[in-house]
Amino acid sequence: MKLNIDQLTDFNSNKKDLVNNENDFLRTEFSKKNVSVDAIIQKLADFQVAIPSWALGAGGTRFGRFSYGGEPASLEQKLEDIGLIHALTKTAGAVSLHIPWDIPEDVNAIKDIALDNGIIFDAMNSNTFQDQTDATESYKFGSLNSMNEASRQYAIEHNKEVIKIGEQLGSKSLTVWLADGANFPGQINFQKALLNTEDSLKDIYSAMPDDWKLFIEYKPYEPNFYSTTIQDWGTSFMLANACGERAYTLVDLGHHLPNTNIEQIVATLMLKGKLGGFHFNDSKYGDDDLTVGSIKPYNLFLIFNELVYGMEHNKNNPYPAWMIDASHNIKDPLEDLIQSLEAIMIAYAQALLVDRNALEVAQLENDTVMCQEILQDAYRTDVRSLIKAARIQSNAVVDPLLAYRTFKIRKQLITERGTKVMATGL
Amino acid sequence: MKLNIDQLTDFNSNKKDLVNNENDFLRTEFSKKNVSVDAIIQKLADFQVAIPSWALGAGGTRFGRFSYGGEPASLEQKLEDIGLIHALTKTAGAVSLHIPWDIPEDVNAIKDIALDNGIIFDAMNSNTFQDQTDATESYKFGSLNSMNEASRQYAIEHNKEVIKIGEQLGSKSLTVWLADGANFPGQINFQKALLNTEDSLKDIYSAMPDDWKLFIEYKPYEPNFYSTTIQDWGTSFMLANACGERAYTLVDLGHHLPNTNIEQIVATLMLKGKLGGFHFNDSKYGDDDLTVGSIKPYNLFLIFNELVYGMEHNKNNPYPAWMIDASHNIKDPLEDLIQSLEAIMIAYAQALLVDRNALEVAQLENDTVMCQEILQDAYRTDVRSLIKAARIQSNAVVDPLLAYRTFKIRKQLITERGTKVMATGL
Amino acid sequence: MKLNIDQLTDFNSNKKDLVNNENDFLRTEFSKKNVSVDAIIQKLADFQVAIPSWALGAGGTRFGRFSYGGEPASLEQKLEDIGLIHALTKTAGAVSLHIPWDIPEDVNAIKDIALDNGIIFDAMNSNTFQDQTDATESYKFGSLNSMNEASRQYAIEHNKEVIKIGEQLGSKSLTVWLADGANFPGQINFQKALLNTEDSLKDIYSAMPDDWKLFIEYKPYEPNFYSTTIQDWGTSFMLANACGERAYTLVDLGHHLPNTNIEQIVATLMLKGKLGGFHFNDSKYGDDDLTVGSIKPYNLFLIFNELVYGMEHNKNNPYPAWMIDASHNIKDPLEDLIQSLEAIMIAYAQALLVDRNALEVAQLENDTVMCQEILQDAYRTDVRSLIKAARIQSNAVVDPLLAYRTFKIRKQLITERGTKVMATGL
Amino acid sequence: MKLNIDQLTDFNSNKKDLVNNENDFLRTEFSKKNVSVDAIIQKLADFQVAIPSWALGAGGTRFGRFSYGGEPASLEQKLEDIGLIHALTKTAGAVSLHIPWDIPEDVNAIKDIALDNGIIFDAMNSNTFQDQTDATESYKFGSLNSMNEASRQYAIEHNKEVIKIGEQLGSKSLTVWLADGANFPGQINFQKALLNTEDSLKDIYSAMPDDWKLFIEYKPYEPNFYSTTIQDWGTSFMLANACGERAYTLVDLGHHLPNTNIEQIVATLMLKGKLGGFHFNDSKYGDDDLTVGSIKPYNLFLIFNELVYGMEHNKNNPYPAWMIDASHNIKDPLEDLIQSLEAIMIAYAQALLVDRNALEVAQLENDTVMCQEILQDAYRTDVRSLIKAARIQSNAVVDPLLAYRTFKIRKQLITERGTKVMATGL
Repeated sequence: MKLNIDQLTDFNSNKKDLVNNENDFLRTEFSKKNVSVDAIIQKLADFQVAIPSWALGAGGTRFGRFSYGGEPASLEQKLEDIGLIHALTKTAGAVSLHIPWDIPEDVNAIKDIALDNGIIFDAMNSNTFQDQTDATESYKFGSLNSMNEASRQYAIEHNKEVIKIGEQLGSKSLTVWLADGANFPGQINFQKALLNTEDSLKDIYSAMPDDWKLFIEYKPYEPNFYSTTIQDWGTSFMLANACGERAYTLVDLGHHLPNTNIEQIVATLMLKGKLGGFHFNDSKYGDDDLTVGSIKPYNLFLIFNELVYGMEHNKNNPYPAWMIDASHNIKDPLEDLIQSLEAIMIAYAQALLVDRNALEVAQLENDTVMCQEILQDAYRTDVRSLIKAARIQSNAVVDPLLAYRTFKIRKQLITERGTKVMATGL
Repeated sequence: MKLNIDQLTDFNSNKKDLVNNENDFLRTEFSKKNVSVDAIIQKLADFQVAIPSWALGAGGTRFGRFSYGGEPASLEQKLEDIGLIHALTKTAGAVSLHIPWDIPEDVNAIKDIALDNGIIFDAMNSNTFQDQTDATESYKFGSLNSMNEASRQYAIEHNKEVIKIGEQLGSKSLTVWLADGANFPGQINFQKALLNTEDSLKDIYSAMPDDWKLFIEYKPYEPNFYSTTIQDWGTSFMLANACGERAYTLVDLGHHLPNTNIEQIVATLMLKGKLGGFHFNDSKYGDDDLTVGSIKPYNLFLIFNELVYGMEHNKNNPYPAWMIDASHNIKDPLEDLIQSLEAIMIAYAQALLVDRNALEVAQLENDTVMCQEILQDAYRTDVRSLIKAARIQSNAVVDPLLAYRTFKIRKQLITERGTKVMATGL
Repeated sequence: MKLNIDQLTDFNSNKKDLVNNENDFLRTEFSKKNVSVDAIIQKLADFQVAIPSWALGAGGTRFGRFSYGGEPASLEQKLEDIGLIHALTKTAGAVSLHIPWDIPEDVNAIKDIALDNGIIFDAMNSNTFQDQTDATESYKFGSLNSMNEASRQYAIEHNKEVIKIGEQLGSKSLTVWLADGANFPGQINFQKALLNTEDSLKDIYSAMPDDWKLFIEYKPYEPNFYSTTIQDWGTSFMLANACGERAYTLVDLGHHLPNTNIEQIVATLMLKGKLGGFHFNDSKYGDDDLTVGSIKPYNLFLIFNELVYGMEHNKNNPYPAWMIDASHNIKDPLEDLIQSLEAIMIAYAQALLVDRNALEVAQLENDTVMCQEILQDAYRTDVRSLIKAARIQSNAVVDPLLAYRTFKIRKQLITERGTKVMATGL
Repeated sequence: MKLNIDQLTDFNSNKKDLVNNENDFLRTEFSKKNVSVDAIIQKLADFQVAIPSWALGAGGTRFGRFSYGGEPASLEQKLEDIGLIHALTKTAGAVSLHIPWDIPEDVNAIKDIALDNGIIFDAMNSNTFQDQTDATESYKFGSLNSMNEASRQYAIEHNKEVIKIGEQLGSKSLTVWLADGANFPGQINFQKALLNTEDSLKDIYSAMPDDWKLFIEYKPYEPNFYSTTIQDWGTSFMLANACGERAYTLVDLGHHLPNTNIEQIVATLMLKGKLGGFHFNDSKYGDDDLTVGSIKPYNLFLIFNELVYGMEHNKNNPYPAWMIDASHNIKDPLEDLIQSLEAIMIAYAQALLVDRNALEVAQLENDTVMCQEILQDAYRTDVRSLIKAARIQSNAVVDPLLAYRTFKIRKQLITERGTKVMATGL
């Protein structure tokens, strides 16, 4: 299914004035602080976040999975789903594909569908953490870090294959997330595993076209429960430096030990020009993959505060690749993604509202109380009208979730696709 | 397959003297401390741990599963597997069944197989965290805590059904683990969820025969990632008190927040006569379900130290139901269980070696240094010869893992069952 | 020093209209959701939080302490400081005294100063975690849990003494926080320590006047780093039940293991009528005692969401005693407290804005997405104008921090008291 | 006081045979595994751990401090204390001084005392986390990272001064631990703080003599509770690389977030030749500074397993500087240190017992079960007789703690020094 533009325009018709009124108030308030509300609205309108192809079906845990009606059964339908979200929000104009779950059968047809929905192909994702049914080598004991040369080569070749598929689609980057590690002390030799990983990544790096980037993800644990070879940003950063200048670290919010100061990691990586990509989600305990902003919204704001600072000051750092990497055992995936996008936009808008000149002064004076006031002033502001204004500007709908429900989109998808389909993926 | 007794005797033949020599040394050493090594050997020989029926196939994570050859395809084969472990160790003389994964088709045939393998039926486990394919109600949003009365009743009825199956098999207890909770703030009303859970548990309790016990498990998170209705021992204890005197708390080692002092919880529950059951496993991050003793063996010892103390002093507390609840993505499940049993026996033996009179004196004198010395003296002792002696006494093999490999048991199971079978369960 | 009312009125003079305008907007918005903005403003105006006497000097860590000019040198000056905060905010109309740091020399004079500043005497705090210079028994190895009967009695007597002082001042409750525990495995016998604690608390409970309440605090660790006798809410709840109906659990936000769902604990305790007191602060790692709302403001909101629910529905639960328990190594203590009060009011206002009817419906329908929307709608609202309105209504200043700086209060305190004074306390 | 050699010889006299007997058994057992027990005994005899000068007095927490009789009142007495420990264990032949707590007044006299006690001067420690009473600049808002150029220079000069003192004493390295960070979001600019820290460290590095090493410590939190500028090994490693080849990372066991895999960090740093120093202690919750091996002895073994591997394979990594960095609120500091040394020797001995050839084979074959068996076989061995043998070889006493008590050393120290002295330091 596809939404038509008139529907959306009708939906917005009587809300423009209200939004403008609300923003006039913010305009007055923040102009005193040298913050331009209109510039912020433009930045919000420009911001695009990739949707991963695996986020469109129902997720699950090791204890089970509760399915959802109208799940997309094909890559075509996945793009269609993203197209719906993008039509409603104008913030989801990219897809991040996972191979082998989403190998396009007809590349040109897929490109046409994407083009038609205003979607570009962001970073490609390889998968060396599962054995596919036709696999000739196993990743049971590792992939790029493996002591088994055949498994290691198999994993390298798979990554090269993913690059080739990405090239055909117009993608410009590869994200490598490695589950590689150990469940038990002694299982692997840490040093050899790290050296193997470095060699493998260099091999993959050298197979990338000259205009591609490599994003190296890190994670402390899961699915391995004793050690993970790329366990933290320090390891990823070291490997990225070893690979070359187009290799970067990718930060996934859920991939940290309890209480990690993630915003400081972001600041460090941007200072060094090595923050390549960013995966949004939220969590309370581990890599819970919950809706963005549903658990720790202030933390998300603090991270965006560093991202905004870095985008302004760290010219050596490339513009990061943004992606949502959440799951949703019990929510309609499309509603979940709309909520995630909303939370991202809110945190971004709040970070843009921070009075950076005043903050710099307060920091220089060690006026800790005022530093806190300045951040909290931005955070405590109700920025939802700014996001609405950005949506009006982009021809999105003012309230995407309400529109989704009003248009009964899920019902239509079920009618079209049935209730028994299951999306490829986890 | 089944091991014959002669095989086992041959395997042990030349090891008895060695074991005796080693223990003579310990006998001398510990007799000075009023610790009887022979009494310890007898206690070790008597100790029995239930094997859960779901531990005999390959486990998995949400990221995938690596299968194993020779997995048991039926309840009969699961009992056969436990029979093998029990023959080798004489410590695994019980099974804990999970319904609906292990509903016996022919109760008498199953009982015969169990009897033949020296296995009794320990606590029954119900499952209200997954929707079975023929389910008429869903647990997607809870079971015993559900706001949906139909789901709640469906879950209660399932538990009553599990009790009935258990009665036929000779089990005397029901373990209830509830995944019930929420993934997002606001999703459930905490108070109503707790009240519903209490009502449901009382209903189930009242359906138990008079000689049955109810074990109420707790867990802080997973598969729900915001809240779990029975999140900690305090909640379980409160519910057990509400149900009645045959309701108890069940402690699973992996079901705690980071850094929880589990041994203190054990001590408190035993003091109050409410420690009903115990699930062994190990973990570094969350409910990792790793082999017992593979990550934090000193912690296991400290817990056994409290269990031994409680079994001696807290006569109001029933003898706890012991069970291994580990998973094993990458190990042969039977080898994994043998390693777990070994770690349990070691921790138990060390705890039995603690010089309790000296400890009591040191505690009274606030001689912290000496308290630590006394515990560590027991822990640092190599107790493996005690376990070997207990095995010789029970007609088990001295070194079960070596025997398992020497007898090529996995190879025989693959020959009998094939490589493509997949056990029921997670 | 003391602020005069005219100063405050002048300060507010030109801000009333602005505040009213902002609230008119909220009034319209929330009246659609059956939420009365005026009723909320009244509740905000009525809300009072006790200031602990030890929060008025500079805090420190084990690594050192950075002092502050104008610290209060006496109980009189501490009350004066609270009087200043209360004059500015009209939210700090109570003090929570710590004995022996704040033993009044002249009770009537102290009562007069308090009365004059509009301050009442909230819960009294005893101290059995330090040895005072004139101590005849030591708490080095415990107090109420001690194996040393003399130490235990000494601690009990101290608590009884605190009750007597409190009676003279008009306090109606005693808060007992126990550091008691162990630094090393084996150091204490968990069961005996718990039994001693129960006996001691019962003794103290029985010494309280009939209209007093006993608040039993819990904490997982620090200053003991292996175990704490009252380690969690479950232990506190068990002890409160053992003492009697006027014994309650006290929740301190910083006293939890990583990732604990505190709001669920609050809900459970209120359901059982056992939430007696509440200590506000914030933290990222442990009991960091940071400014309220400075790290996890959404969490604070979720906790207030349960407090508001409980105050409406759990008539068996007494109105809780509120107190800030933060420290401030590097901030002016008075500014820190003003920021804490602001954060508390914001979270409370947001919780009051929650559309509870809609939430109940969404919960019944398992509409998880909508449940989240309802909470976030309240949380994302800029409620600062409501707090300003409440302050205008109470004759406080609209912006207390700005007033504090404008009136140069710290400078005046330094002039009056000097820069070298050090407050009693930690 | 000083122990005489005859006393020690007498103490050991009747224990040599016993120790030899026990080791004959281990010799036989481990010779099968190509592990030479005599070579291990030699390595144990050679191993030396520095004692920090601040560990000899009673430690404390922010909640208070319980003093101890006979604390050393001067640097001379501190060296005397270490001399006692060294005489008993022959493992503590080094001291690590903390400036300004231990500035020697008469350098030659101090050197003589050290020489007389067999003690060398290991890494020097600077202190920029406290303001000394005569300080002209404050570290309240940072030192090497400070936005305040004067504070930053003051901290740099202090470090240079420490180097000079160290040169006079014969030390060859400087350990820099920085508390620098922030208590609140927004307080510091992460990027500027990091750049300042890098510049400051380079300045200090350039002031070191050519044969000195710089050890850069990291820590995630405390005393700052929001962020720490050198928060993890990745940051330390990056800074060490920036400084030069004689700059290294220093690992303190307590300076990690919950559940960090420290042994993997050790392996990575040694592979890169950047593990310079190591601080031993133990902890359950945070930087608890408990006796080494008192909480997680298996973890200590796994770390030593990597250290032993690295010392054998990573020739580019210097021999690490070992130090105990524990505190002891309630234990006699000297007994505490003896227990720590014992735990270190045990873990080292167990790591040396690991059958590395077999482990390498098992790792290559992905025989996870066997990998675990090999490590646990070493760990479960009672190695205390090996340590006793090493002590006999070094003319230490077989059982240092027993000797300490038998010789009534604390009593003598109290007689000499009194009960009211308080050591300089925390």
